Amino acid sequence: MSFFFNKNQSFSEETKIPHVVILGGGFAGLAAGKALAKYPVKITLVDKENHHLFQPLLYQVATAGLSAADIAQPLRHIFCGQSNLTTLMDEVVDFDLDASKVHLRSQSLSYDYMVIALGVTTGYFGNHQWARFAPGLKTLDEATELRRRVLSAFERAELAIDSDEASLWLTFVVVGGGPTGVELAGAIAELAQHVMAKDFRHIDSTKAKVHLIEAGPRLLSAFPEGQSSYAHKRLKHMGVKVHLNEPVTSVSTDEVTLSQSSIHSGTILWAAGVEANSVASKLGQAPRDRAGRLEVGADLMLPNYDNVFIAGDLARLSDFKGKQVPCLAPAATQMGRHAAKQIVQHLAGKPSRPFVYFDKGNMATIGRSSAVANYRKISINGYFAWVAWLGVHLVFLMGMRNRISVFLNWVWSYLAWRQGARIITKKLPGRSESSISTSSA
Amino acid sequence: MSFFFNKNQSFSEETKIPHVVILGGGFAGLAAGKALAKYPVKITLVDKENHHLFQPLLYQVATAGLSAADIAQPLRHIFCGQSNLTTLMDEVVDFDLDASKVHLRSQSLSYDYMVIALGVTTGYFGNHQWARFAPGLKTLDEATELRRRVLSAFERAELAIDSDEASLWLTFVVVGGGPTGVELAGAIAELAQHVMAKDFRHIDSTKAKVHLIEAGPRLLSAFPEGQSSYAHKRLKHMGVKVHLNEPVTSVSTDEVTLSQSSIHSGTILWAAGVEANSVASKLGQAPRDRAGRLEVGADLMLPNYDNVFIAGDLARLSDFKGKQVPCLAPAATQMGRHAAKQIVQHLAGKPSRPFVYFDKGNMATIGRSSAVANYRKISINGYFAWVAWLGVHLVFLMGMRNRISVFLNWVWSYLAWRQGARIITKKLPGRSESSISTSSA
Repeated sequence: MSFFFNKNQSFSEETKIPHVVILGGGFAGLAAGKALAKYPVKITLVDKENHHLFQPLLYQVATAGLSAADIAQPLRHIFCGQSNLTTLMDEVVDFDLDASKVHLRSQSLSYDYMVIALGVTTGYFGNHQWARFAPGLKTLDEATELRRRVLSAFERAELAIDSDEASLWLTFVVVGGGPTGVELAGAIAELAQHVMAKDFRHIDSTKAKVHLIEAGPRLLSAFPEGQSSYAHKRLKHMGVKVHLNEPVTSVSTDEVTLSQSSIHSGTILWAAGVEANSVASKLGQAPRDRAGRLEVGADLMLPNYDNVFIAGDLARLSDFKGKQVPCLAPAATQMGRHAAKQIVQHLAGKPSRPFVYFDKGNMATIGRSSAVANYRKISINGYFAWVAWLGVHLVFLMGMRNRISVFLNWVWSYLAWRQGARIITKKLPGRSESSISTSSA
Repeated sequence: MSFFFNKNQSFSEETKIPHVVILGGGFAGLAAGKALAKYPVKITLVDKENHHLFQPLLYQVATAGLSAADIAQPLRHIFCGQSNLTTLMDEVVDFDLDASKVHLRSQSLSYDYMVIALGVTTGYFGNHQWARFAPGLKTLDEATELRRRVLSAFERAELAIDSDEASLWLTFVVVGGGPTGVELAGAIAELAQHVMAKDFRHIDSTKAKVHLIEAGPRLLSAFPEGQSSYAHKRLKHMGVKVHLNEPVTSVSTDEVTLSQSSIHSGTILWAAGVEANSVASKLGQAPRDRAGRLEVGADLMLPNYDNVFIAGDLARLSDFKGKQVPCLAPAATQMGRHAAKQIVQHLAGKPSRPFVYFDKGNMATIGRSSAVANYRKISINGYFAWVAWLGVHLVFLMGMRNRISVFLNWVWSYLAWRQGARIITKKLPGRSESSISTSSA
């Protein structure tokens, strides 16, 4: 008995149909795959995870508002109706661009065209040793790890035998004042102020301190200045201590050192930088920025290889009109779609076209009933921005089941002041065991 | 500034109020804590997790039907309104029964009364080396690990380069024909037959084989014989191969050896035995059965210690009427409540009372629209038993948010033939990496 479908056994022999390999199932890879649905190509989409992740809501998994499955959708399910696309759960290990081959862990693929949309991971400006003390937030596993650390900190404070130890565990540091940092700091402050307040007997969780550290002169630097100061004011009101112009000089197990001061904290979270997916370093001589992102032109082509396109956060470029393309989901989607169009143009023997970024604006949430949003010259802050934020994120979330689940979780949290997913899974982080026994000795 | 509440700072000095320590936040520990709500005692509930887990639905987390947070509830939240109870997230390391002390990882507690409700873990009949090849299903982390293995197996089959390898990954073995084994085997068969069928391009997931291995002469041995054969017939119809009278003699990375035959399988799950929580071995000379469960009398007292009670799965006993008390949630709840009553009796200077088990019947689900249920002499099979099963589990699940979420997930899966949580988190299990590279070499 064969476990294989016959029709697909012979798939690889249909050599006349061009083979498009898409690396990465994020916003860019997904858009590229979908844009090619009706063209006579066979597509292989490779991702090392089995799911597309809706990263804009990842911080809510990290702060116990949502479950992991609420913001992820199996890639196979997304494409189950698109017969020209095959999904492989596999990892890229190397490239042979001259032979038009990509080597995966389990096999090698030959391609006629390739779209590289592998995205970025958390970056530490060369100090990768800080990663274990201050984990970042780019994947579901990292979100679960952050949730474990944040919830465990309250438990450890409750077990603390003196005020110093309680203080350590009730002090949270978030490094990085961009949207993710602002969202994390706000959500942790709300957990401490409201959600946790009635649950503990020994500690007063409302006395927890949340520090938000930003190296630059203002929060949310991609937003207009008025919105930066609104966010700053709101966070201050929520009890978050914002540090501006204070770059981090070192991070250890329970301390963050800044240029002028240092903060003792049992829970340090990193939302300060990005770094190209490490496999992108195997792309030969291509020019890169300091974060390892590939510098490409407005045609999205990898220099010297006109059948390889870069899309999403991994690409660093100014568009046709000279506008720097930001690391945002709508930009990634547009780039993925453009890369697909370039392939279609090429197949038709037509010349390539430059990418034009259509700016859909920008938004970030600060806390309950409070967000900032802008679109071209319109900026709104506060409640209406928050409602807009909720609506936009629900609409762009993939899958009706996830939309319903996220919506109900939000309604529940709003009405009951309760996060639905306050569950610690896996053991408490190892290093913390010892800090408890040290301080109780 | 103090991080502590003052009123609780002095809690430990109120020496006149008897201190009850409850170990374990499962059904028994929870019931004991709640039953003491209105009595003048101070209670400390200790659990190494931060949540109460609704174990009867754990198999649905393992088979991607529900998210972890749907079947767990933070213990602090459950007891946030009960002012005489403090929750500690900590682990028991040893006992000093003569001094009425229990040693936790972070501190030692003195008690006037103690209820030990630490439950059981998966048992391998002395072959603990099988655990890494065939994980069990007792905690949320184990459920996530099972889900990862089951979903990854389909992904690995899709990557397989020959039929032998695909066969290995499309063969699933569940060891143990009790309710958990039956539920797991049925759910995996439905995943392969229906949910996964449209998602893959290379493999035909409907050709997956699910084996259910039972050492005894029939499935569901705690149920009437008619229900065993109903379950057997239904599973066969769903494509599950049931092996009876075939004890497992060895388990390795990709093979289960039975007395007469052996099965190659990439995914082996264990639902065959239980073993007392290992810390119960520190309870001195108390008599135990082969699984390490403590043999107690109908008063639930630990022999020689009239202030220590054993409740839940960890207790092995026949009740006042000579009936063997089963390892079921309702029995654990009743024992927990009885232990609390014994403490109240003792405080009032009244004699102890024997435990009487009230049999609320038994139920197990086999698959979509198919379950068995019995109550005293009434047995029902099929659709109505399944509806009853859904209803009973929804009612007893803790927390309205979880009930709504589970209900909607069930409706969604039923209508859409889709499991909502088909997300692989964490890396693929390490050993499998090598088996893939071996076979593609």
